[in-house]
Amino acid sequence: MFETRLAQAASLVEAVLHDILSEAARAGETARPPRLLGAMRHGVLAGGKRLRPFLVAETAHLFGVPQPRAVRAGAALELIHCYSLVHDDLPAMDDDDLRRGQPTVHRAYDEATAILAGDALLTLAFEVMAGDAVHPDPRVRAELLLLLARASGLGGMAGGQMLDLEAEGRFAGGAPLALAETEIRQLQAMKTGALIRFACLAGAVLGGASPEERSALEAYGATIGLAFQIADDLIDHEGDAASAGKATGKDAERGKGTLVSLYGPAWARAELDRLVAAAGRHLAPFGPKAAILGEAAHFIAFRQV
Amino acid sequence: MFETRLAQAASLVEAVLHDILSEAARAGETARPPRLLGAMRHGVLAGGKRLRPFLVAETAHLFGVPQPRAVRAGAALELIHCYSLVHDDLPAMDDDDLRRGQPTVHRAYDEATAILAGDALLTLAFEVMAGDAVHPDPRVRAELLLLLARASGLGGMAGGQMLDLEAEGRFAGGAPLALAETEIRQLQAMKTGALIRFACLAGAVLGGASPEERSALEAYGATIGLAFQIADDLIDHEGDAASAGKATGKDAERGKGTLVSLYGPAWARAELDRLVAAAGRHLAPFGPKAAILGEAAHFIAFRQV
Repeated sequence: MFETRLAQAASLVEAVLHDILSEAARAGETARPPRLLGAMRHGVLAGGKRLRPFLVAETAHLFGVPQPRAVRAGAALELIHCYSLVHDDLPAMDDDDLRRGQPTVHRAYDEATAILAGDALLTLAFEVMAGDAVHPDPRVRAELLLLLARASGLGGMAGGQMLDLEAEGRFAGGAPLALAETEIRQLQAMKTGALIRFACLAGAVLGGASPEERSALEAYGATIGLAFQIADDLIDHEGDAASAGKATGKDAERGKGTLVSLYGPAWARAELDRLVAAAGRHLAPFGPKAAILGEAAHFIAFRQV
Repeated sequence: MFETRLAQAASLVEAVLHDILSEAARAGETARPPRLLGAMRHGVLAGGKRLRPFLVAETAHLFGVPQPRAVRAGAALELIHCYSLVHDDLPAMDDDDLRRGQPTVHRAYDEATAILAGDALLTLAFEVMAGDAVHPDPRVRAELLLLLARASGLGGMAGGQMLDLEAEGRFAGGAPLALAETEIRQLQAMKTGALIRFACLAGAVLGGASPEERSALEAYGATIGLAFQIADDLIDHEGDAASAGKATGKDAERGKGTLVSLYGPAWARAELDRLVAAAGRHLAPFGPKAAILGEAAHFIAFRQV
C-alpha cells in the first residue's frame, strides 16, 4: 500500500538525518556549537512526509540501486528542502510563525540563528552528497552535486523564491504583479519544481540509466512537480490552518497569482487528473515495476495537506 | 614583488567570477532572475584582495598544478567567503551598512534579496567546485567538496559565527560573555581560520601532495589564519573607518572578547612576529619555491586594512 511504503522510506531517511545531525564533531570539524545544531535539528527533525527522498529511493529502485545509497542521497536532498523552509519562513521573507504545527526556527530560536541554521543545512547537504556512502564512484557523486546545485540555486529553487517575492510586490513599489500563465509556470518550475525534478533524476543517475530513461524520469519529475504545486495552491485556496498545520489563505491575502486563482478550482482539479495521466505515460517504458511511482503521482495531486 | 603577484591572482579570479555570474542561464537552469543575479554580483564583484584564491593558487603552484584549475577552485572558495559576508552583514547578524566603502547587499537591495543572494552564492560555490574545470579527476573534486563543506558549515565557519554571536551576548539574557583564551581561539579557528586553512589544503589536494606535505600546508594555513584574525582585531582596535573601508571599533562597542582586548596591542604585535616565523618553518620542506607564501604570511600579519 502506498502510504505504508512512503512511511517506510521516511523512517529510513529519518534515521540517516538523525545520524548526520548527531552531537559529536566529525573529522574536519572543530566543534558543533549546541545552539546552532539545535536549530538545525529543529528545522529538519520535525517530521514531514519526506516526499523527495521517497522519490529518489523509488526511482533508484527501478535500476536496482542498493537502498542505503539512495537513502543517503535522499537525505542530502531533504536537507536542501529543509534549509529552504527555514529561510522562507524568516520575517524578511514569508514571515511565518508555524510550520507543521510547530514554531518556525526563528520563532523557536531567533532570526540570526535561523539564518545560520539554514546556511549550515545547505552546506551539510553538499557534504553528505559528496560522501562515498552515496555512491562508490566519485564521478556519480560529482554529477549529483552539479545537478543538485543547479536545481537549488540562482537558476532553480532560490531564483524561484526571488520571483515569488517579486510577484507579491514586495519590492519596486509594492503592488503585486499580475503574472501571466507562462510566468507562473516558470516561477513554479523553479521554486518547487526543480527539487522534485532533481529527486527523480537522482535515481536515474545513481542507477546509471540510459539517456532515454533519464529523460523519461525527468519528464515524470517535471509533471509531478507541477501537480505538487497546483495541489498546494488548491489546499491554500480551500484549506484551513488546522488541517494544513500551517497558515493558509495567505496566497490570496498577498495578491499572489497562482494557476488556481487564475483559472479556478474546477479547472485545477481537471488539470491534476490530466497531469496524473501524463505522469503515468512517462513511466510506461519501465513497466509494472514503476507502479508505485504512478501511485505517487496520484498521491501528490490529490493529497489534502 | 608580493603585492603585484597578489593583484595578478586577483585579476585572474575576478575574470572567472565575472564569467560565473554572467547573465545567460546555463545548462540545468530555468532562468537567472535579474534582481537576484544583481544582488549576487553586488556581493561578489565589489573588489577585495581575493586572498583566499591567492592562497589556493600559490599552494597549488608548489606542485605544478595548471593555473586555470587552481583559479577555478579559488573562485569557488571566494564565493563561500562572499556569501558569508552578505549574511554576516544582515540586520539580524552584525547589522553593517558598509562593506569596502559600498552599501552592503541588504542596503543596496533589501533583506530578503540579501538572504537569497547569500544562499545562491553558497550553492554556486559547490556547483563550481563540482565542475570538471577544477580537476579532471572527479575523486579530487569530491574530496575538495567534502573539505570545503566541512570548513564552511556547522563545524567550521557557520559554527564560528554562531559562537561569535553568542559571545556578544545577543541571546540568553544579553550580556557579553567573558571568553577565555581557549574559547576565543576555538571561535576564531572556526569563523575565519577554517576557510584560510582550507585554501592552503586545497592547493595540496589539487596537487596530489603527500600526507606530510598536506600536513605542512594545513599547519601553515592554521598559523596564518590565526595571524589574519589577530591582525583584523588589531585593525579594529586601532583603526578608523576611513582607512579600513568599514565600520571599526565595533568589537569593543559590542563588548566582544578578542586576544587583542585580552592581552593588548603590544602582545598582539609580538604574537604576529612569532606566527610569521612559525609559518616560515611550516614552509621549510618546500624550499625556496615557497618564498611567496612566506611573504604572504608577513602581508597577512602586518596589513593595515
